[in-house]
Amino acid sequence: MVLPVYVPSANEIYPVCGVSIGIAQAGIRKAGRDDLTVFQLAAGSVVAGVFTPNRFRAAPVQVCQQHLSVRSDVRALVVNTGNANAGTGADGLQAARETCAATAKLLDVDTEQILPFSTGVILEPLPVERLIAALPQAIAAARSDAWHAAAFSIMTTDTQPKISSRKLVLDGQTITLTGITKGAGMIRPNMATMLSFLATDAALPAALLGQLARESADQSFNRITVDGDMSTNDSYVLIATGQSGLTIDSEQHPSWAAFKQAVFEMSLALAQNMLRDGEGATKFITITVEQAASRTEALKVAYTVAHSPLVKTAFFASDPNLGRILAAIGYADMDDNRPALDISQVQLWLGGVHVVSQGQRHPDYQEEDGQRVMQASEIEMRIALGRGEVSETVYTTDLSHDYVSINADYRS
Amino acid sequence: MVLPVYVPSANEIYPVCGVSIGIAQAGIRKAGRDDLTVFQLAAGSVVAGVFTPNRFRAAPVQVCQQHLSVRSDVRALVVNTGNANAGTGADGLQAARETCAATAKLLDVDTEQILPFSTGVILEPLPVERLIAALPQAIAAARSDAWHAAAFSIMTTDTQPKISSRKLVLDGQTITLTGITKGAGMIRPNMATMLSFLATDAALPAALLGQLARESADQSFNRITVDGDMSTNDSYVLIATGQSGLTIDSEQHPSWAAFKQAVFEMSLALAQNMLRDGEGATKFITITVEQAASRTEALKVAYTVAHSPLVKTAFFASDPNLGRILAAIGYADMDDNRPALDISQVQLWLGGVHVVSQGQRHPDYQEEDGQRVMQASEIEMRIALGRGEVSETVYTTDLSHDYVSINADYRS
Repeated sequence: MVLPVYVPSANEIYPVCGVSIGIAQAGIRKAGRDDLTVFQLAAGSVVAGVFTPNRFRAAPVQVCQQHLSVRSDVRALVVNTGNANAGTGADGLQAARETCAATAKLLDVDTEQILPFSTGVILEPLPVERLIAALPQAIAAARSDAWHAAAFSIMTTDTQPKISSRKLVLDGQTITLTGITKGAGMIRPNMATMLSFLATDAALPAALLGQLARESADQSFNRITVDGDMSTNDSYVLIATGQSGLTIDSEQHPSWAAFKQAVFEMSLALAQNMLRDGEGATKFITITVEQAASRTEALKVAYTVAHSPLVKTAFFASDPNLGRILAAIGYADMDDNRPALDISQVQLWLGGVHVVSQGQRHPDYQEEDGQRVMQASEIEMRIALGRGEVSETVYTTDLSHDYVSINADYRS
Repeated sequence: MVLPVYVPSANEIYPVCGVSIGIAQAGIRKAGRDDLTVFQLAAGSVVAGVFTPNRFRAAPVQVCQQHLSVRSDVRALVVNTGNANAGTGADGLQAARETCAATAKLLDVDTEQILPFSTGVILEPLPVERLIAALPQAIAAARSDAWHAAAFSIMTTDTQPKISSRKLVLDGQTITLTGITKGAGMIRPNMATMLSFLATDAALPAALLGQLARESADQSFNRITVDGDMSTNDSYVLIATGQSGLTIDSEQHPSWAAFKQAVFEMSLALAQNMLRDGEGATKFITITVEQAASRTEALKVAYTVAHSPLVKTAFFASDPNLGRILAAIGYADMDDNRPALDISQVQLWLGGVHVVSQGQRHPDYQEEDGQRVMQASEIEMRIALGRGEVSETVYTTDLSHDYVSINADYRS
């Protein structure tokens, strides 16, 4: 069983003026597989990014952060699959820098105007000479309508491409937003194992674009979790080419709210589609923790439940063994500076079914009602802590046989 | 593939003078299955315990803690499988208290001298009337050589009984130590989903026995993890009947060190055998984190690696995709009050193979060497952080298809 990922048809994917994409086969991943993607950005484009906090963050992530700290007028993104260039030390950094230098030379821009991205196996040297040899071909292949092909070329264990695209009219002008993402496992808060590129032809100053990247990541990519693993390579990049004529220069701009809302919705859609394509996922589970005393404790409880292998396998089996959820709530690392959780205040709903009240089985709860909800492929769980007024929502999947198969066989 | 659990033969399991065990079928779990075990302890016995810190700790755990806070001269332990009596609120507490009261009446002792234990499904009412109805039979069946049968009767998803037994001569006297444990999943620091009962015929004062329970749990049951889930029912109980004539009255006693060592070794053996029988386990993995700045950070790194589903599936597949270990080290929630981890100081060994030095692949590392180590069923991993002098070791398993099957099908 595979959860549905909405993949827009070709005529629903709108090119973004100022972005052209070229794809090549560099032989990094395997022969005959597109594995090198170059996004060229028109002069005047502004770029902002959010990156993994993993201490073993990959060389390209370090180089992206360094380049973006110097300037935001990026002219190209270079993305390879098949190798993460992580755990590769000084040699890996050198390889990422050489990638940028070679691209900059071909495009006649500065090295700091190039951002490198890698995804794939960790701890293996990046075959940078093969990557560089394929750059001219990827650059020459550039076209504005290659978003769909790019969504394919950046995939690793993904089974489906993830694309979101829309047009909206703001301030009397039509602007376009198109984004792609990859990632299907090692997904957890503080970014998934993911690369995500979302471009618009609106113009935004770098600081505002950076704020939007952080805020939109926080309500999308930072709210999904498959297995609790955090990648070395997660990167989420917003691109504003400014080719549409609309400039949103501050939060006071009349179109800011609508634009921000569109970016929020698209990043959430991309994040949720990553989860739907999560390794071996057969269920899409929305977990809302309500009545928490703080955002931190709401998220800790939600993620503890979302990461529990026992909860996840119960969902896979559609087995309403719901005490496992209470056990997970019971060991969540909640805020130690507040009074202890009063378990007699805890409530749990699955779909519309009231499973737990006063910390125990609700008197009207019938196991067949729980089972019915769990058999669906889309499940909503609501946990009320009875401690405050804060709510947070995270999204996760079940844990299936296929998760084990995919991750046991990834490299073979 | 099943990992070897050493089960001693009948003549290697020594009865402990002062402990007699009776088993019955109460029909709590399923018809025709031993599910009620009563340990009767001779007058003068002293008992101490360590229990789960889970906030949703089960009713019997709460009752055990309450009874032991009042007195340590326990006269019986009553253990049922098939139902955890957790998430059962006031009714559950009442059921656990009725169990104790009924047992106390049959044995003509005080209710506080009875300790109840339950393991099984959470959130279901305990059928206490069936339990109480079977008590006379379990009490009447008491015999001193029933440890092996008891190890079977307390099993849930366990495939093999776990028993450790030995005699030692201390101070010219022969004393006996015999223990059993159950638990195969939901195993993580701060107690596994486990019940463990370890008895000796030495005499110890309650305070010293309590200290020994805490210290021995900390280096055994609190060092094993299968899936990161923490149970509502974990209980580890030490029983000292005092029937051997040897009294160890303080840490200054000449036999204390040897006695403590024996308890440590036996609790570690019981804990490791739980892990070997871990749900779906095909590999036994020892993870040592060295050169840490503190015990806390050593354990956090070790457990983060041990809990990573990506690391665990790689071990299942014998795939030396060892970058996943670096990724897990990179996101471990280390001590925030110290300088950040310098990843260029990190080293990793698998068995005798030096995989990572200076935070990257060791120049001599060959993938076939890593693969060879991973194909074994017993694997030692050593991580050096280059930050200090503290070492800690934890034990875990891989994540296999059978883990998913067992936990998806547990109740069916």
